[in-house]
Amino acid sequence: MSFKVINFKNKFSKFNDLWSPKVISELNNYQFKLVKINNDFIWHKHDDTDEAFIVIEGKMFIELRNETVEINEGEMIVIPKGTEHKPFSKKETKVMIIEPKGVTNTGNKRDKLTAPNNTWI
Amino acid sequence: MSFKVINFKNKFSKFNDLWSPKVISELNNYQFKLVKINNDFIWHKHDDTDEAFIVIEGKMFIELRNETVEINEGEMIVIPKGTEHKPFSKKETKVMIIEPKGVTNTGNKRDKLTAPNNTWI
Repeated sequence: MSFKVINFKNKFSKFNDLWSPKVISELNNYQFKLVKINNDFIWHKHDDTDEAFIVIEGKMFIELRNETVEINEGEMIVIPKGTEHKPFSKKETKVMIIEPKGVTNTGNKRDKLTAPNNTWI
Repeated sequence: MSFKVINFKNKFSKFNDLWSPKVISELNNYQFKLVKINNDFIWHKHDDTDEAFIVIEGKMFIELRNETVEINEGEMIVIPKGTEHKPFSKKETKVMIIEPKGVTNTGNKRDKLTAPNNTWI
């Protein structure tokens, strides 16, 4: 049993690589992950799960097939399962992702941006 | 399908009652809920699920049987299933809770602080 309080700023100070989510906590079979992003990710989808993004610092965009959404600090969005999306940002942005354990960042694609799963900080 | 961006400040401006979580989004069978808290909640536990708390503004405390944890803005904690806990704060504090649909705020207790489930804002 762990009653550890997790501080986002402290956790973000522990890594600098982009587009490589780091697990900070688990809730049942779900994981909270922090990720630093900048510039373009790739188009992909997750066929088996929704995916939540919370912007902790900065501004991110998610390109969808018919629109592009902007998510600022203090905002969140849930991308429904099966939805093709391409995250991007114009400067480095700090994001929290919430999704089930075992979800790969590039979903149905394998790419040089595909990151290892279950990397804890 | 909804691509709606959710702004926490905007959502918090829509209610003032305390200890009564409001649903703002869903992720698979999980819900994101916002709640304003102040003073003492009651001792309770959730036998079937962990529960995540993220402090959006202010400072909350969670009394556990052997310690009391303090969670500040930009911090989170996951209380493991079956763990007796009593949240409290010393002034009004804004919190996000993440847990499966259908979880009652007072867990195994029924109390005047028991809030209706699935109240969306």
